[in-house]
Amino acid sequence: MRLWGGRFSKDPNELALRFSQSLPFDQRLAECDIEGSIAHARMLGKCRIITREEARRLEAGLERIRAGLAAGEVKLDLSSEDIHTEVERLLFEQVGALAGKLHTARSRNDQVALDLRLYLREEIDQIRQEVRDLQQVLVDLAERHLGAPMPGYTHTQLAQPVLLSQHLMAYFWMFQRDRDRLADCRRRVNLCPLGAAALGGTSFPIDPAFVAKLLGFDGLCPNSMDAVSDRDFLIEFLADAAVAMSHLSQLANEIVLWSTTDFGFIHLDDAWCTGSSIMPQKRNPDPAELVRGKSGRTYGHLLASLTVLKGLPLTYNRDLQEDKEALFDTLDTLRPCLNVMREMLATAAFDTERMEAAAGRGFSTATEVADYLVRKGTPFREAHAIVGQIVRYCEKQGVTFGDLSLTEWRSFSKEFGEDTLQIISPLGAIEAKRSPGGTAPERVKEQLEKARRALES
Amino acid sequence: MRLWGGRFSKDPNELALRFSQSLPFDQRLAECDIEGSIAHARMLGKCRIITREEARRLEAGLERIRAGLAAGEVKLDLSSEDIHTEVERLLFEQVGALAGKLHTARSRNDQVALDLRLYLREEIDQIRQEVRDLQQVLVDLAERHLGAPMPGYTHTQLAQPVLLSQHLMAYFWMFQRDRDRLADCRRRVNLCPLGAAALGGTSFPIDPAFVAKLLGFDGLCPNSMDAVSDRDFLIEFLADAAVAMSHLSQLANEIVLWSTTDFGFIHLDDAWCTGSSIMPQKRNPDPAELVRGKSGRTYGHLLASLTVLKGLPLTYNRDLQEDKEALFDTLDTLRPCLNVMREMLATAAFDTERMEAAAGRGFSTATEVADYLVRKGTPFREAHAIVGQIVRYCEKQGVTFGDLSLTEWRSFSKEFGEDTLQIISPLGAIEAKRSPGGTAPERVKEQLEKARRALES
Amino acid sequence: MRLWGGRFSKDPNELALRFSQSLPFDQRLAECDIEGSIAHARMLGKCRIITREEARRLEAGLERIRAGLAAGEVKLDLSSEDIHTEVERLLFEQVGALAGKLHTARSRNDQVALDLRLYLREEIDQIRQEVRDLQQVLVDLAERHLGAPMPGYTHTQLAQPVLLSQHLMAYFWMFQRDRDRLADCRRRVNLCPLGAAALGGTSFPIDPAFVAKLLGFDGLCPNSMDAVSDRDFLIEFLADAAVAMSHLSQLANEIVLWSTTDFGFIHLDDAWCTGSSIMPQKRNPDPAELVRGKSGRTYGHLLASLTVLKGLPLTYNRDLQEDKEALFDTLDTLRPCLNVMREMLATAAFDTERMEAAAGRGFSTATEVADYLVRKGTPFREAHAIVGQIVRYCEKQGVTFGDLSLTEWRSFSKEFGEDTLQIISPLGAIEAKRSPGGTAPERVKEQLEKARRALES
Amino acid sequence: MRLWGGRFSKDPNELALRFSQSLPFDQRLAECDIEGSIAHARMLGKCRIITREEARRLEAGLERIRAGLAAGEVKLDLSSEDIHTEVERLLFEQVGALAGKLHTARSRNDQVALDLRLYLREEIDQIRQEVRDLQQVLVDLAERHLGAPMPGYTHTQLAQPVLLSQHLMAYFWMFQRDRDRLADCRRRVNLCPLGAAALGGTSFPIDPAFVAKLLGFDGLCPNSMDAVSDRDFLIEFLADAAVAMSHLSQLANEIVLWSTTDFGFIHLDDAWCTGSSIMPQKRNPDPAELVRGKSGRTYGHLLASLTVLKGLPLTYNRDLQEDKEALFDTLDTLRPCLNVMREMLATAAFDTERMEAAAGRGFSTATEVADYLVRKGTPFREAHAIVGQIVRYCEKQGVTFGDLSLTEWRSFSKEFGEDTLQIISPLGAIEAKRSPGGTAPERVKEQLEKARRALES
Repeated sequence: MRLWGGRFSKDPNELALRFSQSLPFDQRLAECDIEGSIAHARMLGKCRIITREEARRLEAGLERIRAGLAAGEVKLDLSSEDIHTEVERLLFEQVGALAGKLHTARSRNDQVALDLRLYLREEIDQIRQEVRDLQQVLVDLAERHLGAPMPGYTHTQLAQPVLLSQHLMAYFWMFQRDRDRLADCRRRVNLCPLGAAALGGTSFPIDPAFVAKLLGFDGLCPNSMDAVSDRDFLIEFLADAAVAMSHLSQLANEIVLWSTTDFGFIHLDDAWCTGSSIMPQKRNPDPAELVRGKSGRTYGHLLASLTVLKGLPLTYNRDLQEDKEALFDTLDTLRPCLNVMREMLATAAFDTERMEAAAGRGFSTATEVADYLVRKGTPFREAHAIVGQIVRYCEKQGVTFGDLSLTEWRSFSKEFGEDTLQIISPLGAIEAKRSPGGTAPERVKEQLEKARRALES
Repeated sequence: MRLWGGRFSKDPNELALRFSQSLPFDQRLAECDIEGSIAHARMLGKCRIITREEARRLEAGLERIRAGLAAGEVKLDLSSEDIHTEVERLLFEQVGALAGKLHTARSRNDQVALDLRLYLREEIDQIRQEVRDLQQVLVDLAERHLGAPMPGYTHTQLAQPVLLSQHLMAYFWMFQRDRDRLADCRRRVNLCPLGAAALGGTSFPIDPAFVAKLLGFDGLCPNSMDAVSDRDFLIEFLADAAVAMSHLSQLANEIVLWSTTDFGFIHLDDAWCTGSSIMPQKRNPDPAELVRGKSGRTYGHLLASLTVLKGLPLTYNRDLQEDKEALFDTLDTLRPCLNVMREMLATAAFDTERMEAAAGRGFSTATEVADYLVRKGTPFREAHAIVGQIVRYCEKQGVTFGDLSLTEWRSFSKEFGEDTLQIISPLGAIEAKRSPGGTAPERVKEQLEKARRALES
Repeated sequence: MRLWGGRFSKDPNELALRFSQSLPFDQRLAECDIEGSIAHARMLGKCRIITREEARRLEAGLERIRAGLAAGEVKLDLSSEDIHTEVERLLFEQVGALAGKLHTARSRNDQVALDLRLYLREEIDQIRQEVRDLQQVLVDLAERHLGAPMPGYTHTQLAQPVLLSQHLMAYFWMFQRDRDRLADCRRRVNLCPLGAAALGGTSFPIDPAFVAKLLGFDGLCPNSMDAVSDRDFLIEFLADAAVAMSHLSQLANEIVLWSTTDFGFIHLDDAWCTGSSIMPQKRNPDPAELVRGKSGRTYGHLLASLTVLKGLPLTYNRDLQEDKEALFDTLDTLRPCLNVMREMLATAAFDTERMEAAAGRGFSTATEVADYLVRKGTPFREAHAIVGQIVRYCEKQGVTFGDLSLTEWRSFSKEFGEDTLQIISPLGAIEAKRSPGGTAPERVKEQLEKARRALES
Repeated sequence: MRLWGGRFSKDPNELALRFSQSLPFDQRLAECDIEGSIAHARMLGKCRIITREEARRLEAGLERIRAGLAAGEVKLDLSSEDIHTEVERLLFEQVGALAGKLHTARSRNDQVALDLRLYLREEIDQIRQEVRDLQQVLVDLAERHLGAPMPGYTHTQLAQPVLLSQHLMAYFWMFQRDRDRLADCRRRVNLCPLGAAALGGTSFPIDPAFVAKLLGFDGLCPNSMDAVSDRDFLIEFLADAAVAMSHLSQLANEIVLWSTTDFGFIHLDDAWCTGSSIMPQKRNPDPAELVRGKSGRTYGHLLASLTVLKGLPLTYNRDLQEDKEALFDTLDTLRPCLNVMREMLATAAFDTERMEAAAGRGFSTATEVADYLVRKGTPFREAHAIVGQIVRYCEKQGVTFGDLSLTEWRSFSKEFGEDTLQIISPLGAIEAKRSPGGTAPERVKEQLEKARRALES
C-alpha cells in the first residue's frame, strides 16, 4: 500500500520499491506509531476537525490493531512502504474509509519524528535503569572487597598500590556520567513535533499542546521546519552511547587482561567463558572481548549519522531514513553489553591474594619514599631524584626496598630514619592516601556512601 | 628539561624525544597551567605543606612568568617535554630550588586534567557567546524579512510556500540546542581533578576544595583514578562541536545552492566571495564551501578521540596525549566557522522577489487544495488522490492551478467553489498555516519573541 | 550444539550464549563453509589423515547438506553457536561420529578466515560486474547525448560550458578506478589460510596447496599466526566500498539537484520517484537521496572495523566476530545502490534544451575571451584582469557579452576584433577545448572509445 | 597577492581571507609546485604558446626561487592566498610581467591536483622504504631468536607454544601487505592532471604528454572534469595508512603488555622509556603508547576526507582544500611511527627465559594431546572432549599434564602410551607444527628466506 499515487502515471519500479522500503526495520516503531495516532485522533475530535464519534472509532480501531499486534494476531504486510502506511492500511481494514481522515493535519514527516522521540524516550529510560543496575554491581563488589589491595597502574606499568574498590569505583563514576548525559539528552528528546505537518505547519485548527500532554512531552518543537528536520536528539544519543561503550570497552579490556595467566587477577565463571573447537584446555573471556569489539560498531553508527546530516538541506530528505537502523543497532548493542557486563562481573571471582602480591612487587611505594623525604624538608624534585637513584641501585643489586639496610637508605639521604620501613608496605601506602577521592579505605567508604546516594536519587 | 631521570642509565633517544614532546601544541595551556599552579601553591602554603613564605615566592614567580609570556618577553624552550615541565623550568629560573617544591602532592596526571578543564571551560564560554551572536544575526534577518515568501522544500523539491523568516528561524533553534548542549557539557567539565596526584591521591594533608574554589570549579572529581583517566568531558565537547558543525554545514550548503545562477536566492557580498585564477567572471562562495567541508574535520577528531579511548586501561596512558590536538583543531575550526557564517550572512542580500516567484511555481499549494476538500468533508486520503489527479491533468495540459476554470476544478470534485482561487496563492497558503510553530506570519512573530527571550536569558 | 565443553563445569549462561551467537548472521557463509569443508575433507583423505572412504562419506554428507539448504529442506538450528558448529552438527546427522573427524587439523580460527575469503571473493566478482553495468549505462548515455552542451560548474557556480557527455564520462572514470581497486583487493583476498589451525599450524601431514588449488586460490598465507589474525583484506574492501559509495553519493546528489524545479536538467521516470503522504503534487527523487545518505553507513562500517582492530593482540580474538555484519551490510548497501543508480539513470530523461540555455547564461565563456587576448599577445594574468572588468561593466549595465558592441569590447582592449563574437558561443567554447581529455566533441569521442575498450578488457 | 579581482568591487573581508588562506599549510607543496611549473613552462615554449625565450626565462626564474627557498633566502609572504599564488608572486619579482604568462592553459584546479600527486608519490616512495626498514628489523630479530619459544595466545589466553620468531614474522607479513597496497595506490597517484585547466580542458595547443613525461608520470588523466575532481588517490592512501597504523597499534599494544611486570617478556632500552614526574621508579613505554594512540588520528583523517567528498558536486569545490592537512598530518604520523617502532624494537631485549617458562605453563599443549589420540584413531571431536576432561581433572587436583602418571592418562583413554610425555613439551609441540606457514623451526626458516626475497624485490 502507498499513501500517494494520484499524480503518477505508473507504479514504482520493483527495485526502487524494495530499495526504499523501511517496514523491515521501522516496524519496531509500530507501538509508538499507534500511540501517537491515538493521541492525534483524539485531538482531531476535540478540535472538531473530525467528529467526536469519528475520533472514537479511529481510536477504537487503533486499539484493536495494537492489541492484535501484541497478541501476534495481526500480521504486517511487508509490501507496505513504511510503518505509517501499514498502520493506516490496517486501520482501513478496521474502520474503512474513515481511516483516511486520520492523516488530516499530519504528514509522515512529523509523524516519524514523533515516533522516534517516543521510542527513544522509552529506551533511554530503560538504559538508564540498566546502567544503574551495573553501577549497583560495582558498588556491591567494591564494598565486598573493601580493604583488598591491588597494583595501581599508569601506562599499564605498576605505579602505586591502590584498593581494588577504588579501581571498581572509578568505573562507577564513569557510568554515573553516562546516566547524567542520557538524562540531559532525554530533555531534548522529549518535545513534540506534531503539528509541523510536512514542513510549514497546517491550516487546520489543531491543538498540539493537547497531543503533547497526552503523550507525556515536556513541550512543543518551536519551529515547524526544524521539527521535521531535527535529528540532533538522535545524534546526541548515539554520542552518549558511544562514550558509554568506550567505558565498557575499557572495563572489558581490563577483564581480558586480568583473566590472563600472566595477570591472573580475575576468574570468570565457567558460564561466562567459552571454549575452543581445537584446543581442549581453553577458557576464553569471549563476552568481554565482544563488549570491547562492539564499541567500534557504535562509533561507526555515530559517524554514519553525522555523515548523513552533513550538508543536508533543511526539512525532510529521504536520507534521514538512514537514522533508524543506526539507532536500533546501537540500542541492540549497548543494552546487551550493559547486561552482559553486569552479570559477568557479578559472577566473577577476584584473586585478591594474587592482586595483593602483585601490589607489593617492584618499587610500587617509591612515591611514598619521596614524600617521606619531602616531609623532612627535601624539595620534591630533589626527593624524586634521590629515590630514582635508590631504585637504580636496587635493580643493580637485584634487591628491592625491603632488602635495604638503614645504612644503605641513609647513604642516599640522611633524612631516612627508623620509620622508613613502615612507608614501604603496600597497605601503608594505601592508607596514607587520605586526600579527598583518594584510595585510603576511609575515603573509599565515603565514596561508597556518595555512590549509594547517587543510585537512590 | 625533564622532571624525572634518577633511575635511568641514559638519556632519551633523540627520535623518541621528538616523537613524544607535546610542548609544540600544549603550550596553548600555559596560561591555565600557571593559573592552576598558583592555586596549588597557595593551597600548599595554607595547609602548611610548604611555608606561607615559600608559597608567596612561588606565586610571585609564577605571576612573573605569566606576565612575561603575555608580554612576549619570556620564550619557551621547545626542548622541554611538555608545558608542565617547561613552567617548572621557568620557575626554577625565577625562584631556584624552591621551584622543586611546587610539584609536591601533584602529578602531571592530575595537572594536565586540570589544565584541560580550565582551558575548555573558557573556550565553551566563548563559543556559547559566538553561537549567540550568530543566532542574533538570524533573528535580525528573520525580522527584517518578515512576510517574504520563499519555496519550502522537502527532498529538495518544491513543497509548500513558507516564509524566509521561518526558514532562518529553523537554524536559530538548531543553534539554540547547540548552546544548551554546551551548557550541559560545561557542568561536567567544571570539576577539579587536583589531589588525585598520579592516580591514587596523596598522603600530604591537602585541601582540594580550597583549590577548586580558587579556580571557580563547581566541585571535586569523586575518585582519584577516574580523575586522571576521565576524558569524557572532552569527547562530549567534540560531539557537541560535531553536531554544531553539521548544522553549519547544512546552512553553508544552502548558501552554496542559493547563490547558484539556478536558484539565485542570495547574493553574497563581494568581500565574502573569491574569484578564479583562470575564469575572470567567477564569484565563488568559498567561505560557505569551506564551512561545509570543515564539518568532516570535526567528525574526524571526534572519532579519533573515541578510538584512542577504546579498550584503554584505566588512569593515565600516554595515548591520552592525543586528546589535545584534536581538541585544539576542533576549536580552531568551530569558532572561525561560527564567525564566518555570522558575518557572511549579515552582509548577504536575499533576492526576495526571485524567492517569491519561485514559491508560486508549480503546484506548491496542492496541500492547501486537499485541505480545502477535507474541510468540505472529504476524507484526507481521498482529497489527496483527487488533487494528485488535478496535478497530473495540469501537467498534461501544460498549465498550473491558476489556469484552471471553476468548471475544470469541479470536474474533479463538486466541493470546489468560488473560493478555490484564494487558496492557491502562496501568501494565502502561508497565512493559513497558523498551527503553533507554523509558518504563518503571526506564528513566526511569536517565535521571534521567544527567540529574543532565549537570547537574553 | 557446541564444539567444546569437556573442561567446563557448567553450561554457558543463557544471556552469554545469545550475546555471542553468530549464527543469525554468519549463516550467510553456509555455502562457503561447506565448500571449504569438502576441500578439507578431500585433502584429509588424500594425505591419509583419514581414510579415502571416510573422506568420500564426509564429502557426500556435506553435499547432501548443501543441496538440502539450497532446496530449503534443511533448516538451521539457530541455537548453535555459529555456522561452523551448525554444519558439523548437520553433518553428524548425516554421517554420525565420523563427522567428528572433519575438524582434524583445522580450527574455527582458520576456517572462518577461509569462509570470509571465499565469500568476499565471489562478492567482489559480482560487484565488479555491477560497476561495469553502471559504467555501460554512462557510456551509452554519453554517446546518446554527444554534442549536447550543459553548464560546467566549479564551486557549484557556472564556470564554462561543457558537454553533458563529458560530465557523465567523469563518473565513468571514477567507477573505473573503483573496479581497479577491487581487482587489487581481490589479489589480497585470494589466499588460503587453511592449515594455520588455531594459530601455529598443525602437526598433521596436511597438504594446504592441494586445498588452495581445489578452492581456486592463488596461494597460501605465509604465516599461520597472521593467517588467523589478518582482516586487512576486509578493511581494504570496506575502504574500496566507501570510496565507491562516495562516488555514488556525488552522482546521487547531482541527480537530486538536477531534478529540482530550479535546475530542471533531469526528469526521473515516474517509476523511480515517490510521492508525499500529504502533498499531492510531490515527485521526490527518493532513490537518489537514499543512495546519497547510504554513503554514511559504509563510512561507519569502515570506521567500526578499523576500531575493532586498533590495539588488538595477534591471532584470533572474539572481537573479530564483529567483522561480519559490517561486511554484510556494506555488501547489502553497495550492490543495491549500484543497481538502483544504473536503472534510475537508464530510465531518466535529460532536458538538454534547458541545459543548453543554462550553459550560455551569464559569462560562462569569459575564459575563452581571456584566452583570445592571450593568443593576441596579452599575458594571461593581464587578460584575466581585463575580462574581469568587462564582466563588472556588463553587470552594471545589466547586459551580457552578446549585448556588447565591438566598440565597447575595444574600449577594454584594442586586441578585440570582429571574431570576438564567435568565441562567446557555448558550443564554440566547447569545441575549442581540444586538449587531451578535454570537452571538445572529438576528445570526448576518443574517451568513449577508450572507455569501451576498458569495459571489454 | 591574489590571482583574480578584476570583477570585484571590493577587497576580501579580512576574516574571510584568513579563513580561506591555505599558504600556512600548502607551503609544503612549494617544491612540487615549482617543479610542475617548470615542466609547464617548458611545454608552453615547446608548443609555441609562449616563445622559447620566454619559457627559458620563466624556467630560470623558477629555478632561482627553488634555490632561494632551499637556501632559506627566499621567504614566503603568508598573506598570499595559497602556494600557487605565492610562487607566481615570487616569479613576478624575478621576471616581471612575463610571470603572468605562466598561468596560460592552466588553472589552480589542475595545478593543485598535480602538486598533490607529485608530493604524495614521493612520500609513498619514502614510506615504502621505511616500512621495509621496519620489516628488516623484524626479520633480523626473528633470525636472532630462532628457536626461542613463547606462549602463543588466542583471546589473549595461553593457547599453544609458538616460536617468538613466528610471532615476529606475522608482523612482517602484515607490513608486506602495507607495502603492496601502497604500490597499488602509487599507480593511481601517478597520472598527470595537467591540461584539465579549470575543468573542461583548454583551447591552447598544449602537449600534456610532454609534461607528463618530464614529471615522470605513467600517463594522463582521461577526463578533464574528473582530473580536477579526483581525490580518490588521496583517500586510498589515507585508508592504506590507517591499515598500516592499525598494524602498528597492534604491535605497540603487545609491546606495552609485554613490558608489564605481569608479562615481563620484553625490556625496552632506557633511551626508549620515559619516567614519571611523581613516581621515581617508573619506566613507561611511552613511545609504544603513542604509536597505539596515534592510530585514532589517522582513522579520523580518513573519515574526515570521506565526509568531505560525500555528496560533493563534480569538479573543484573549495571543500577540497580540506584534503591537505589530513594528508600532511597522516604523513607526519605514519612516518615517525614507523621509525620509532623500528628503533624501539631494534634496541629492545626479549626475556626469552621468561617467555619459555610462560610457554609451558598450564595446558598449552592440550591440542597436541588431542592430536595424539586422533593419530591413534579417535575422531577429533571425541579426542577434544577427552582432553577437556583431563584438564578439568588436573585443575581439580591442582596439577598439570607433567604431573600425571601413565595410569592416570590411561584412565581417560587406553590409547595413551609411553610416548605421551614427549608430546607435552613446549618445544616438542612447536617442532610438530610442520604444516606450511606453521611454527616449526624449519617452516619459520623457510619463511625467513621468503621474507628476505620479498625485501630484496
